[in-house]
Amino acid sequence: MLHDSLAQQLYAEICKITLIDPHSHINPHAAASKSLDDILNYHYYTELAHSAGMDQTPLAKDVEPRQRVKAILSHMGRIDNTVQYSWFLEIARTFLGYQGERLTARDCDWLCDTADKLMAQPDWEDQVLKKSNIEKVFLTNDFDDPLEGFDTKRYVPCLRTDDLVFKLHEPAVRERLAKATGTEVIAEALPKLFQHFTSKGARACAISLPPDFSPTAAQGKDSPAGVFWTLAEHCREFKLPFDLMIGVNRRVYEKGVYQGQDLFDQRTSLIQYQELFNAFPDVKFCISVLSSAQNQELVSYSWIFPNVFTSGHWWYSNIPVYIQNDLRGRLQAVPKTKQIGYYSDMYKLEFGLPKFNMYRRILAQVLADDFIRTKTYTETEALQLAKLLLRGNVERIFGVQ
Amino acid sequence: MLHDSLAQQLYAEICKITLIDPHSHINPHAAASKSLDDILNYHYYTELAHSAGMDQTPLAKDVEPRQRVKAILSHMGRIDNTVQYSWFLEIARTFLGYQGERLTARDCDWLCDTADKLMAQPDWEDQVLKKSNIEKVFLTNDFDDPLEGFDTKRYVPCLRTDDLVFKLHEPAVRERLAKATGTEVIAEALPKLFQHFTSKGARACAISLPPDFSPTAAQGKDSPAGVFWTLAEHCREFKLPFDLMIGVNRRVYEKGVYQGQDLFDQRTSLIQYQELFNAFPDVKFCISVLSSAQNQELVSYSWIFPNVFTSGHWWYSNIPVYIQNDLRGRLQAVPKTKQIGYYSDMYKLEFGLPKFNMYRRILAQVLADDFIRTKTYTETEALQLAKLLLRGNVERIFGVQ
Amino acid sequence: MLHDSLAQQLYAEICKITLIDPHSHINPHAAASKSLDDILNYHYYTELAHSAGMDQTPLAKDVEPRQRVKAILSHMGRIDNTVQYSWFLEIARTFLGYQGERLTARDCDWLCDTADKLMAQPDWEDQVLKKSNIEKVFLTNDFDDPLEGFDTKRYVPCLRTDDLVFKLHEPAVRERLAKATGTEVIAEALPKLFQHFTSKGARACAISLPPDFSPTAAQGKDSPAGVFWTLAEHCREFKLPFDLMIGVNRRVYEKGVYQGQDLFDQRTSLIQYQELFNAFPDVKFCISVLSSAQNQELVSYSWIFPNVFTSGHWWYSNIPVYIQNDLRGRLQAVPKTKQIGYYSDMYKLEFGLPKFNMYRRILAQVLADDFIRTKTYTETEALQLAKLLLRGNVERIFGVQ
Repeated sequence: MLHDSLAQQLYAEICKITLIDPHSHINPHAAASKSLDDILNYHYYTELAHSAGMDQTPLAKDVEPRQRVKAILSHMGRIDNTVQYSWFLEIARTFLGYQGERLTARDCDWLCDTADKLMAQPDWEDQVLKKSNIEKVFLTNDFDDPLEGFDTKRYVPCLRTDDLVFKLHEPAVRERLAKATGTEVIAEALPKLFQHFTSKGARACAISLPPDFSPTAAQGKDSPAGVFWTLAEHCREFKLPFDLMIGVNRRVYEKGVYQGQDLFDQRTSLIQYQELFNAFPDVKFCISVLSSAQNQELVSYSWIFPNVFTSGHWWYSNIPVYIQNDLRGRLQAVPKTKQIGYYSDMYKLEFGLPKFNMYRRILAQVLADDFIRTKTYTETEALQLAKLLLRGNVERIFGVQ
Repeated sequence: MLHDSLAQQLYAEICKITLIDPHSHINPHAAASKSLDDILNYHYYTELAHSAGMDQTPLAKDVEPRQRVKAILSHMGRIDNTVQYSWFLEIARTFLGYQGERLTARDCDWLCDTADKLMAQPDWEDQVLKKSNIEKVFLTNDFDDPLEGFDTKRYVPCLRTDDLVFKLHEPAVRERLAKATGTEVIAEALPKLFQHFTSKGARACAISLPPDFSPTAAQGKDSPAGVFWTLAEHCREFKLPFDLMIGVNRRVYEKGVYQGQDLFDQRTSLIQYQELFNAFPDVKFCISVLSSAQNQELVSYSWIFPNVFTSGHWWYSNIPVYIQNDLRGRLQAVPKTKQIGYYSDMYKLEFGLPKFNMYRRILAQVLADDFIRTKTYTETEALQLAKLLLRGNVERIFGVQ
Repeated sequence: MLHDSLAQQLYAEICKITLIDPHSHINPHAAASKSLDDILNYHYYTELAHSAGMDQTPLAKDVEPRQRVKAILSHMGRIDNTVQYSWFLEIARTFLGYQGERLTARDCDWLCDTADKLMAQPDWEDQVLKKSNIEKVFLTNDFDDPLEGFDTKRYVPCLRTDDLVFKLHEPAVRERLAKATGTEVIAEALPKLFQHFTSKGARACAISLPPDFSPTAAQGKDSPAGVFWTLAEHCREFKLPFDLMIGVNRRVYEKGVYQGQDLFDQRTSLIQYQELFNAFPDVKFCISVLSSAQNQELVSYSWIFPNVFTSGHWWYSNIPVYIQNDLRGRLQAVPKTKQIGYYSDMYKLEFGLPKFNMYRRILAQVLADDFIRTKTYTETEALQLAKLLLRGNVERIFGVQ
């Protein structure tokens, strides 16, 4: 909740901007949740509950979903200070009509029953999108996704390339590639993937990269950096922006929960991408980073390189104190046309609303303090900036109508 | 001083929480100061006065204490902007009844006379603890400390292991170890130390580590990393939390004042402890870091690893602007049960009050702004969180009654 | 614009402090602008306009200046969120009497005509300095600058040593050095440069350094680090402070606009200067850094080392959100006598006013919030601190009368 009346007023107006969510992990065949278990299975909750002392028994596949929900809810009292908890509370209130103040295991049955009933409605997905004021959601598709059986105008395909870059030496991945493209020759397979994806309306290529990744043209064609370089060439040819999500080390906590094993190493720099940014002036690189320190680099690189764009607030930086600082730096020094304000990174549609609301509140406060109160912008101009960040830039940068 | 009335009100309530100070350098045989020289000999003052231009002559052992006090006071005009100065001013006002606005060399005699008189009272130590609302203070004991002659309920022993890890190759240290344990076989000596310490009520093992330290199981038993690994094994066996204070380079300023020679290198990462955190899921690692950038790592590692706890605001990060940012990050993303709010790091008891007050003011303001005004918590809930940070978590994590 | 009335009041008083600008790139023979092209040619505008989509055609030398101005103005709508734009708007309003709200290409002719007329006045330079309340401006002179034909009391020479350290292997540089000093023997040439510069009133030696620079005494005399070490010896002998501007990588964006090609690598540490700071206790090192993370190091190093001074807010850190955080850290932990508040880094005099105003506003707000409202300082004391930061320390550290 905002307590500053100018910010409240701006927030109300910002909420009227119909969103395009430029990065998510939505499965378009099951976009909305079907139960509370779908919501609380989000790794943010399983990892926080586990970090706060829950063992992983309730997370096993054969556990009755309501038991799992109860186990996670019973640990909420240890994490109710976190912003992640606040997202869940906002989901419970907005989508389920929860009226209480603090969620506990005692709410389990009511929440589950209500979720089961509401989410069974045939138009639940549409209701969620409408209530969230989200028009389109970008996906993150495996390279061998047939991209069929869903509305690609609503769920915009994006080519996820992590497996191609980091696992192409694995026979299973090579087999998947051969099956998807009809050829075992990689130099032929990759353009076919791009053709397939762009023919289905794909608007971006995306990858997450470890902190020590440092691609150059000289690296071997079959090495991760070599494949990555080839992908950048295809992005140029097929005019696809390339989302680089920089800084994640996989499987740091080996016995962590599913998707709760990754962490970062702050010792990374965008200088590692110097050769890339110079080599591909025509490719738009939409950069996400994991730390505030690297965000200051991102602000500077995006201020200098025409092809470097700032993109959202990712994962461990998707916390109000860091969003606020990182956003202020970007708004004060990067051309406003080069900033992609926010994306949900969600797995289920219900998370779009609380996550975008978090961002919209912070944005409203920053616009109030740094732009309107300083007389830099009028309220109308501030709202135009908000619209650029939340919609206009996404439309233009990714070529979405 | 706080100027926000909600924060003021919270601060007043927070001050009523009786503290357990989970890390200090108190000598339990001379816990309170006996003179103003004891206060101003704190390295924060000697190093700031020296940095601001004082030569080191007044710091020699044979200098008359009042001359040393006068020398340091005469440089206060150059450092009265610092938070360290504000601690001293608060000590002078609270414990000595100083009524002035700004301390100078002219105050030397009055301050020294008053201190001599008040600190000579037999119950001075009790008075200080009572006024500070501190019940227990954790110590940092050398491994060969007999731990006798003091109340270990009030002054809780902790095993400091810096010498064991980094100086075991020095004959003098080996001799001390042999003398303390009755054996020259290290594999036998270490468990004896742990038995001795735990039998005396020790509640933690502690160590400060350089920025490039990166322990693994594979390193030689006699290397620093090898000894460190063995200590972690003993922490597991003896159920002692392990305080890791990460990032300090010793003797960077070679001719600096006593204890004023150490600095940090921001290029360090918690990823260096990946193997350790995975190998010892049953050991509680209470982590202190030296920079705000690494605090963002700490927030993330503590959010993911069940055995990683955030601990206090250490040394070069023990400055309001950094405490505020670091605290906000922790409160927004780490389970509230895993956060040790603050420790004094003090050498003399009088410093507990102003240092904890600094923290309590910042905490009050953050609770007001991020929790109460946003309707995340009621005032009662916010105070319960404060109590966890300042007492409850210390009791539970370290097993203090 | 400030909206807090206490801060406004402080700002008004701070503006009365007559400034000495301790670092600029002013050409004393053409200190003020002669046209709007001189203003908009500042690399901040060319690089932001280029980053926002302007090609470099208008920047060619043979383009009619008014065409270049129009091209840059026509991209202002994409960067009007930035602080750099706000500097230009303040110049247009204060020096040219611009009355509008938002600058666009439509303003081109009026702005150019007005600038041509006003800047042609013979006392324009004096008017600008007077309106900016700047008394002296430090220069950054090439080592072979004759330092003649200008008032060295107003424009204080400083010896820029980048070429000597990093390009002494280039025949052209050796020739320039031989020509300037009358000798090809470097060991003789360097002292002659220092004699020449100090005889002309030079008050500092200055250099910008890459993030991986790590000088030690042991490096070869002819290596960059070796020459740098020799320069430090001369600073000691000639009693010149040494401005170290740490962290810039040159030509990162190879096809960037002139002076818009440089960026930083956050992975750098002041520990790289440990040996230097220890070896030269009598040399004052005035340190500028490029990131907030390294600013926390700077705060700590300046708190410990008597010969390390904090200096201004440089380049990619010269953005309000970073200035504010960095300034708060310095004011809370570094002796107030060791802080050089701000320098303009300007190429043309007109930039002094908006840049110093930006700093003065942030300083006023920090003094209001962290010093006056907390009852640390009275308003009078806060203004005395401002005077130290903006003038007194510059006078004392550089020995300017």
